Amino acid sequence: MHGGVPLVIPTLYWREGDHVYLHGSAVSRMLEAARGATVCVTVTQLDALVLTRSAFHHSVNYRSAVLLGRPEEVTDPEEKAARLRAFMEGLMPGRWDILRPVKPKELKATRLLRLPIDEASAKIRSGPPADDTADLDWPAWGGLIPIETRLGRPQPDEHALPGLTPPKARKPRAAR
Amino acid sequence: MHGGVPLVIPTLYWREGDHVYLHGSAVSRMLEAARGATVCVTVTQLDALVLTRSAFHHSVNYRSAVLLGRPEEVTDPEEKAARLRAFMEGLMPGRWDILRPVKPKELKATRLLRLPIDEASAKIRSGPPADDTADLDWPAWGGLIPIETRLGRPQPDEHALPGLTPPKARKPRAAR
Repeated sequence: MHGGVPLVIPTLYWREGDHVYLHGSAVSRMLEAARGATVCVTVTQLDALVLTRSAFHHSVNYRSAVLLGRPEEVTDPEEKAARLRAFMEGLMPGRWDILRPVKPKELKATRLLRLPIDEASAKIRSGPPADDTADLDWPAWGGLIPIETRLGRPQPDEHALPGLTPPKARKPRAAR
Repeated sequence: MHGGVPLVIPTLYWREGDHVYLHGSAVSRMLEAARGATVCVTVTQLDALVLTRSAFHHSVNYRSAVLLGRPEEVTDPEEKAARLRAFMEGLMPGRWDILRPVKPKELKATRLLRLPIDEASAKIRSGPPADDTADLDWPAWGGLIPIETRLGRPQPDEHALPGLTPPKARKPRAAR
């Protein structure tokens, strides 16, 4: 919330057990506003376009989760480093340990919030199109067109040292 | 907003000129709550993982837009049909005209809101990693790993008539 108006801000997230973690700059206005307030964290994955014989029944297959709660701040530097390490391990296993070690001032410049998974709901559409029976012989194509997200070919920057290979990464998702 | 708490609900959207359109069931609680209230519509596209030599400077490339405003309802049936047609034309050009024609009761069962693009902000990160200069010879791979979204091979449903081909579709994006 900002001046009585809800603001939806994209941010990365990760889950460990019964908590969802959010992080960012220590001066992030979003994290400052979220600390101690009731916030909503929503994650959505689009899976397919759903095509029917009528415009009305067109849809999308998707999975979404809505989480409500009051984030608490994680302030202990060792705990912060452990949680950030877990975030990176989830995306790129093994990478944290080969990086230039994190500095105390970097942990200080990073705010970490965690939200207990207490009140949440999920909404999912899956499966085939749902036409009206009377429309099934209408001559328009019906079915699913999958929506796929994947990681492309890594692009080294100009400083990449010879002999280094990019990590095997997993797909991230942004929450709002 | 729902009982004083902000709720972030995924929904499809489209833009025509200076308006963003949202639609859904006439009994959608989200659309009922959004009508006449100040709402926030956010769209985000993740473009790449950004890998640096330190954990601290890891990031993502992304584009996001945040739109604030008070949605107004479009109630005229012809206007509703024209806007829904434009939505489908944007995703699958030519498809609306080959579908079983929309029925008046279907238009009545669909609520259409439009939000003027008056107050909006965009946030973008693009380009290469931004390491500390002192870290550039640290032996960890640095660069971009692109995140790509694409449409997969269409999957006809069991009612698909022989000889029909699926439409050429464009990628949808969900707003929140």
